[in-house]
Amino acid sequence: MGIVLGPNRYGKAETRVVRIVRDTPRHEIHDLNVSTSLRGDFAAAHTDGDQSQVLPTDTQKNTAFAFAKRHGVTSPEDYALALGGRLLGATPAATGATVSVEEYAWDRILVDDAGHDHAFVRRGGEVRTTLVDVTADEVVVVSGLHDLVVLKSTGSEFKGFLRDDYTTLPDADDRILATALHATWQYAADAAARPVDWNATYDAVRALLLATFATTYSRALQETLYAMGSAVLEAHEEIEEISFAAPNKHHFLVDLEPFGLDNPGEVFVAADRPYGLIEATVTRSSEEGR
Amino acid sequence: MGIVLGPNRYGKAETRVVRIVRDTPRHEIHDLNVSTSLRGDFAAAHTDGDQSQVLPTDTQKNTAFAFAKRHGVTSPEDYALALGGRLLGATPAATGATVSVEEYAWDRILVDDAGHDHAFVRRGGEVRTTLVDVTADEVVVVSGLHDLVVLKSTGSEFKGFLRDDYTTLPDADDRILATALHATWQYAADAAARPVDWNATYDAVRALLLATFATTYSRALQETLYAMGSAVLEAHEEIEEISFAAPNKHHFLVDLEPFGLDNPGEVFVAADRPYGLIEATVTRSSEEGR
Amino acid sequence: MGIVLGPNRYGKAETRVVRIVRDTPRHEIHDLNVSTSLRGDFAAAHTDGDQSQVLPTDTQKNTAFAFAKRHGVTSPEDYALALGGRLLGATPAATGATVSVEEYAWDRILVDDAGHDHAFVRRGGEVRTTLVDVTADEVVVVSGLHDLVVLKSTGSEFKGFLRDDYTTLPDADDRILATALHATWQYAADAAARPVDWNATYDAVRALLLATFATTYSRALQETLYAMGSAVLEAHEEIEEISFAAPNKHHFLVDLEPFGLDNPGEVFVAADRPYGLIEATVTRSSEEGR
Amino acid sequence: MGIVLGPNRYGKAETRVVRIVRDTPRHEIHDLNVSTSLRGDFAAAHTDGDQSQVLPTDTQKNTAFAFAKRHGVTSPEDYALALGGRLLGATPAATGATVSVEEYAWDRILVDDAGHDHAFVRRGGEVRTTLVDVTADEVVVVSGLHDLVVLKSTGSEFKGFLRDDYTTLPDADDRILATALHATWQYAADAAARPVDWNATYDAVRALLLATFATTYSRALQETLYAMGSAVLEAHEEIEEISFAAPNKHHFLVDLEPFGLDNPGEVFVAADRPYGLIEATVTRSSEEGR
Repeated sequence: MGIVLGPNRYGKAETRVVRIVRDTPRHEIHDLNVSTSLRGDFAAAHTDGDQSQVLPTDTQKNTAFAFAKRHGVTSPEDYALALGGRLLGATPAATGATVSVEEYAWDRILVDDAGHDHAFVRRGGEVRTTLVDVTADEVVVVSGLHDLVVLKSTGSEFKGFLRDDYTTLPDADDRILATALHATWQYAADAAARPVDWNATYDAVRALLLATFATTYSRALQETLYAMGSAVLEAHEEIEEISFAAPNKHHFLVDLEPFGLDNPGEVFVAADRPYGLIEATVTRSSEEGR
Repeated sequence: MGIVLGPNRYGKAETRVVRIVRDTPRHEIHDLNVSTSLRGDFAAAHTDGDQSQVLPTDTQKNTAFAFAKRHGVTSPEDYALALGGRLLGATPAATGATVSVEEYAWDRILVDDAGHDHAFVRRGGEVRTTLVDVTADEVVVVSGLHDLVVLKSTGSEFKGFLRDDYTTLPDADDRILATALHATWQYAADAAARPVDWNATYDAVRALLLATFATTYSRALQETLYAMGSAVLEAHEEIEEISFAAPNKHHFLVDLEPFGLDNPGEVFVAADRPYGLIEATVTRSSEEGR
Repeated sequence: MGIVLGPNRYGKAETRVVRIVRDTPRHEIHDLNVSTSLRGDFAAAHTDGDQSQVLPTDTQKNTAFAFAKRHGVTSPEDYALALGGRLLGATPAATGATVSVEEYAWDRILVDDAGHDHAFVRRGGEVRTTLVDVTADEVVVVSGLHDLVVLKSTGSEFKGFLRDDYTTLPDADDRILATALHATWQYAADAAARPVDWNATYDAVRALLLATFATTYSRALQETLYAMGSAVLEAHEEIEEISFAAPNKHHFLVDLEPFGLDNPGEVFVAADRPYGLIEATVTRSSEEGR
Repeated sequence: MGIVLGPNRYGKAETRVVRIVRDTPRHEIHDLNVSTSLRGDFAAAHTDGDQSQVLPTDTQKNTAFAFAKRHGVTSPEDYALALGGRLLGATPAATGATVSVEEYAWDRILVDDAGHDHAFVRRGGEVRTTLVDVTADEVVVVSGLHDLVVLKSTGSEFKGFLRDDYTTLPDADDRILATALHATWQYAADAAARPVDWNATYDAVRALLLATFATTYSRALQETLYAMGSAVLEAHEEIEEISFAAPNKHHFLVDLEPFGLDNPGEVFVAADRPYGLIEATVTRSSEEGR
């Protein structure tokens, strides 16, 4: 029985590409963190140290910068599609290329109630993401966001759960529900061809996730995630599937009774660890959903 | 020659107090990270292990939670003043108490263009801070913010600097200027007594810092900071002094010439380390300033 | 076409369990970060808010603590196997349970050249990991380490690579090779039954990874990883497969020529981002390996 | 009343200098994070944008790299003294220069029980630090370490403390005491002139801190810190003063009674926040200490 190379890939991670659009005095900024990787038949590099089929990660980085100029950046998705196609084409041994992009949002600084032409303040909050995978046969686009931190101060319960010998948690009729949402949604196979308006779709999905979180009475974080995912799939036929990873950021009611104070849902301690972690995918079926 | 105890203090750091105001269906949220410390004559605890004068850090934590209910949280400053006074009063051996608060901002989630009553999204961006120091004689309030990340895509130069044998940097006529601003401003001694409107002042100072950053042509980050500080002192007579620590977050122009591309200020790499670090205080003088 | 629930799981992440063995005056410490999750038919929780089949994450946390006492901790693997079995058994709707453990190593503090009985200093360096997956039919144990930071100051080249229009990297005959190694190895299906000596195997694999890194002349990080993986599989028939994720932590030679200094591999800048990222699996085949 | 510039300084932070000593086949590595700053009369840069007296932070970085070659690195202190002297000398407007260095330790990789010539593994654990301040008149050297994480599983109590209305903490007869030690010690004014053996002193102080922590019965973290500081000052007359910042990393005993288990100091949860924070300086006096 022999020892063989299994799945492998390589690339350049976290190239910090900042693209300023300055065609007019009103500049725009695209602030990206770009990671690329190639997979395919690179066995010789592993077993014989033969680099002749290996496009260096340094070249991948150079290409990321060059394409920010040559192709430009109108959206992370559009840029990643171009970059992934180039890397795949430039590397005969590669069978697939992935480009992963994080985008950090900036707002114009307000001066006398108007956005300034070339001064910006980083928005903070969630990071927009995309992961584009390119092969000879197909292109897959999975976009998303992470660290969208949301909280409901009421409208959330957790009760009627399974109990065993190690269960001490009481039912909760009214609790804080908070999470740092990570969501990724896969576009339909023809999305790049249509093409989808990536920026408008991102804004719409984000708004829908937030509104659904706000307006859904929650009997568990699971139920909230399912509602959010269903809402997105119902509204966006160009999206095939959406996945969530949501840490349940516990806010525990503080016992103020020893100090002669009641605490009807007013003072909480925000805990760091441990945290619940709920992961779920909502997808489409050829049959009726439940 | 003997060995003696020098300066010392102790306290509870990073108590994560979340206060929900739910007097009406339209909730409010105050999300705080509270650190307290006491100083005074605690020598016996160090030299003899005698805790009889030591109010435990656990009690300091309890007090932080209890005061979020008993006193309430209208601003970090107001809350910190109450908490600091309590801790000093409760500890006979203490000569001073400091309360440091970070506040994380939340926005209401928009549903049909209106802010929801009890669902929030964390704003991200800068963190608001205050440091209150209370002694028998005086109260010092130093408020501020950190990690306000700003960037100008033009309107910044750096040239005519001192050169020595190790200088290779060329003059820059037009560069990106970016920083993650840390600013702290000390209020006048009577600020707590007036009292100042802490929240309105914070908003005004933040807006003024941003607008001055945007509209000042910069010949160095130092000049920008001085302009920002001067603007704040001119507009806010209740503020005595303002200090900055500002990492110069370098954005280096990428050389695209090897790829047959020009790069007139369009594609940059955002560097992590090293970074310039500029620190400056702008203050008042009984004489005319320069 | 309907909307349906796809893959999902839930659990408690990052429960910080510290177990002191104090059966004799010579204490031992096991310092763990434990994450558990359950998967199975939890659809009702998502679609109907019905928690009746959901063992709370709070209970999972309690069980993690209780099992540190009831079962004890001799190795992360042994503890995780017991905990995973319990969680699966306690949850009728679950078809699988995973337990992920990080272990932080501590050394005894040296006093007069002897290790102290009950005083420890955290070792730092790499973190030991295990991921145990339990179903009715089988148990999978994947152990590993992360952040084992290694560096060779010579004995590494990178040349003869594929070049395209975006390639500017020159051949390197002698460079620093450095990485923060993440490695995971999957044990054979019968490993838990034998049982394997988990601690001894961990120590042996770690030592072998290090020695192979040290003694392999590297024509690429890929070649080094393959050599390390092969060495482990050759020496440990109880291991089926080993996977690596290795950031190429670039150390760039600093150009000192402007200062009249040569730099024959002596002064480097350690870069943060971007970094190469090499991922590879070495596995067994029924055929001869290449 | 005017607005004026107050205290200010500027420099380059976190230059990651890696120095390989390869005079023989048995290489050595010095892995440093170097921050420099200059203070003096730099008012014109702030008020008039005049850079003519400003040695760029880019030049400071260059100098840090050049001095790693020209002067070499035998210890962080020796290197920082040389670098600080150079920067002060090169900048006429400067009245002081500070150089702050973190050093990350590496061990030789063991191959057949012998340390390899040019392959290293990062040790982890504490970071060694020095802060050197150079003016025309004097040189101050403050060395130290941070994140030396230590724990005692017994031999620590906390009781007899001051109680008020917000105190709920019970006396603890036997608890875990753990901290991530930050310590800085100031050398005597003539230390650089003697010179002190910086590396040997560092090792000795570190060992003494650890041994004292281990062997001192603790009635409070304050008492432990004072004992550690006293031990250092007693053993090292070349050290004037030592300061500590020590987070009390709480390990809370888990209540296992609901599960029918006792817990005599065996199972703890390691908490992240909040944490006690104890700061103390131990110094010398012309009088007898208490």
